Amino acid sequence: MVAISEIPDIVIGRLPIYLRALNQLIQQGHEITSSHELGQRLGISSAQIRKDLSHFGEFGKQGTGYQISHLQAQLKQILQVDREWPVVVVGAGDLGRAIAHYAGFVERGFRVVAIFDNDPKKIGTGNNGLKVIETARIADIVSQHNAKIAMIAVPASVAQSVCDTLIAAGIRAILNYAPITLSVPNNVHVQYIDPVAHLQRMTYYLD
Amino acid sequence: MVAISEIPDIVIGRLPIYLRALNQLIQQGHEITSSHELGQRLGISSAQIRKDLSHFGEFGKQGTGYQISHLQAQLKQILQVDREWPVVVVGAGDLGRAIAHYAGFVERGFRVVAIFDNDPKKIGTGNNGLKVIETARIADIVSQHNAKIAMIAVPASVAQSVCDTLIAAGIRAILNYAPITLSVPNNVHVQYIDPVAHLQRMTYYLD
Repeated sequence: MVAISEIPDIVIGRLPIYLRALNQLIQQGHEITSSHELGQRLGISSAQIRKDLSHFGEFGKQGTGYQISHLQAQLKQILQVDREWPVVVVGAGDLGRAIAHYAGFVERGFRVVAIFDNDPKKIGTGNNGLKVIETARIADIVSQHNAKIAMIAVPASVAQSVCDTLIAAGIRAILNYAPITLSVPNNVHVQYIDPVAHLQRMTYYLD
Repeated sequence: MVAISEIPDIVIGRLPIYLRALNQLIQQGHEITSSHELGQRLGISSAQIRKDLSHFGEFGKQGTGYQISHLQAQLKQILQVDREWPVVVVGAGDLGRAIAHYAGFVERGFRVVAIFDNDPKKIGTGNNGLKVIETARIADIVSQHNAKIAMIAVPASVAQSVCDTLIAAGIRAILNYAPITLSVPNNVHVQYIDPVAHLQRMTYYLD
């Protein structure tokens, strides 16, 4: 085990992919796996997987592979997803509402506790106990839930100002669905969901 | 200019990010940029940007930077997004419907031409001229539109079989929203949208 700062972010980025594959293996009834099997499923070399995991200790025995439930529990602990995180969503358009109600978040440890919008026609609407709240109340609600994580689903033109408001309210991790690069301080983490960028990466290869 | 096969996929993956930044600069009224300015916006070194672009020719002059509209046009041509691509969506749940109606796709060159589901209650519903079609008609509709690109928004348990059906119908690029890794032949490209994996990558760093 080495200090957190010494582990490359690209390694951290692969751990959720390993965790997802382990969840899938468990659902399929497997109990033991190997770096070779994981690698084949993920298109990653088994050497890379062993090297990535070795940053965090010894998870498998030579020749017997990994006990999946143990490795799964360890990865959850390392990623701090062995708990439930409250998340706020800003933007109650089609995308924001789909995100706010996506069951996959709560199943994997992220509970959407609030959705914000500045459109008076949207405020107070919504179901599943999640009514749209005016953006002026972001600081109040983020603090009330001690939320550290937000998802931005507003138009690109207002995404930076929403981002600034969230950070001032105490948010430290942002998943940004708006197709712009955000400026944030060093102590704030941003990840991007830009499906068009993924599509454009593939059209390069099409005939 | 080198042959396509010689350019690493990781370089191709950064081109859409550069293109997105150029779009943003144009919207903000800029006409000229530099690898330094792009790098600062994107958190990528200017040397990396120059090296990536050098795979495709000379886009800037020493000391004068890049003419944004020219670089944008060149990147669009390289990525083959200087045209409109028809796309099909499989899965008409909350997520699939949000995807099918997301304006950001058509604005950046991807037109959703059909949405499929196997739930009889959903078939024939929908608006904006996009009615849900039964999955049995995938081969027919994909062929009719000569679609090469699909987005999968079905539960993980059926994603692989949907993927197989799409590939048999002629699909060559898949954007997969189901949280599982798909098995595909070498001539098919897959990209993954898994927001939970992005969130988990950030929780690692939170106090």
